Amino acid sequence: MKLHILGCYSATPRAFTNPTAQVLEIKGHLFLIDCGEGTQVQLRRQKIKFSRIKHIFISHLHGDHFFGLPGLLSTFRLLGRDTEVHVYGPKGIKQAVTTMLKVGQAWTNYPLLFHELDSKESELVMEDEKVEVFTIPLIHRVYTNGYLFREKIGERKLDIDAVLNLNIDTCYYRNIKQGKDLVLDTGERIENERLTMDPPPTKSYAFCSDTAYNEAMIPLIKNVDLLYHESTFLEQHHDMATQTGHSTAIQAATIADKAGVGTLILGHYSTRYKDLELFRSEAHSVFDKVELAEDGKEFKI
Amino acid sequence: MKLHILGCYSATPRAFTNPTAQVLEIKGHLFLIDCGEGTQVQLRRQKIKFSRIKHIFISHLHGDHFFGLPGLLSTFRLLGRDTEVHVYGPKGIKQAVTTMLKVGQAWTNYPLLFHELDSKESELVMEDEKVEVFTIPLIHRVYTNGYLFREKIGERKLDIDAVLNLNIDTCYYRNIKQGKDLVLDTGERIENERLTMDPPPTKSYAFCSDTAYNEAMIPLIKNVDLLYHESTFLEQHHDMATQTGHSTAIQAATIADKAGVGTLILGHYSTRYKDLELFRSEAHSVFDKVELAEDGKEFKI
Repeated sequence: MKLHILGCYSATPRAFTNPTAQVLEIKGHLFLIDCGEGTQVQLRRQKIKFSRIKHIFISHLHGDHFFGLPGLLSTFRLLGRDTEVHVYGPKGIKQAVTTMLKVGQAWTNYPLLFHELDSKESELVMEDEKVEVFTIPLIHRVYTNGYLFREKIGERKLDIDAVLNLNIDTCYYRNIKQGKDLVLDTGERIENERLTMDPPPTKSYAFCSDTAYNEAMIPLIKNVDLLYHESTFLEQHHDMATQTGHSTAIQAATIADKAGVGTLILGHYSTRYKDLELFRSEAHSVFDKVELAEDGKEFKI
Repeated sequence: MKLHILGCYSATPRAFTNPTAQVLEIKGHLFLIDCGEGTQVQLRRQKIKFSRIKHIFISHLHGDHFFGLPGLLSTFRLLGRDTEVHVYGPKGIKQAVTTMLKVGQAWTNYPLLFHELDSKESELVMEDEKVEVFTIPLIHRVYTNGYLFREKIGERKLDIDAVLNLNIDTCYYRNIKQGKDLVLDTGERIENERLTMDPPPTKSYAFCSDTAYNEAMIPLIKNVDLLYHESTFLEQHHDMATQTGHSTAIQAATIADKAGVGTLILGHYSTRYKDLELFRSEAHSVFDKVELAEDGKEFKI
């Protein structure tokens, strides 16, 4: 699992920073999370192939989280895409984005499927054989969801020495990895535990932006390996965080601590701060494993 | 008069180029012409003050010419703007842009006035005491206008030696500069030509993108000082230009030549070409004064 930060600054534009967008790579999937203006250029800079993005998750409909979407979807068309794109986001996203495309007679030539969200409870929004994605209801000025990405438990690992010793034909490997016992021609049953080892542990990533301090998310993100939690403000602007539905670095760290996450990544910095290390040091007062998002940075789990 | 090129590439995104956007500076006005994705970041890089932009002219509703508009208008709000913004563009622009803003409950707190265009004839769309702006109907795949910016003829220039010699009171200067004769207390009439000189010559700029080769624009842009004319393709892709409603460098130069313009600026390059000098050399075969647009470049008239 790998996380590419394409942009991690809040709304006010600056010459050399980008608003929120991330690409999460899990088992060959590329998930785009939020799509601020300029995301397609950031994808080019990070050399991420557009055609590999099939699912796009939008947290909320403030411009710094989705104004890059019409451009990206247009570019898919220019690049001759013919495979499906799924967009998950708040109710209203379909109308806004399709209106932008349709006024220019630039509708897509690939299937574009919107999954509009309006539930206030966490729900499973996407699932395939490898990954599940759940919403994380957040508290902000408009309807907002974070997203929890969880690998599914994979196949059991073949104990190569064991299967070779028992001279087991490779055609049985598939069933064995799926946890089945093996019955030999002699009728003898070999229990699966003798032939396999536990599958590698699954990884999980929670994206939580934008949000006020919100303990209700803790059970949803309990023990995730990696948590991105917004920290728009430092403690000196605690009141402003409350007023605008954002969090401070200490609040993000408190959530990370209470949820027992592996690592916390901070981001969505207000552009009023010059020194981002202050975010890290404030968060450190509460929680140990803190990383700072930066445009272009990669995190591996 | 000064032209800032913010972006001059066609639609396919690249890591370090920008789609169409320009700022034209005339007599203290800043006019934004087209607003591709990323325009607000380009404005920051060029250190152009957002608050000075009051009029925005959009040629057509393909994404690479207007997908930066919702972000820019949102930013005006974030920056606390309270003065009017006027947007001129094809019918449909209001619905598209306002839908993008309204789904995020991010409507403006300043007056935002749309002037939707649908005429196929050139028309005067904006006028004040210093400048007139006319549409230039273009031929493209969707309804498209270029824009002609023309300084108005200013006041006559006071001949300081003459007025001092005649001992004329300064309270008459205003009338004299406006071309009026002076009648002395003695009843003697002094003709204006004895007191003034011709005003400085006016400047004009024509923006023509995107368009197929279109001789109908020639009378509209006759003798302009500066013409930006798109040249998406080189001659080897002449047929592709015709098919997609674009021009080649030679076609742009032919228009410049027939209209007798001062200088031709080429731009809207297809990203398939590595060497932009080829555009200049092809255009040179028809017309002498050719410049190449580049992101971040400034042209003075």
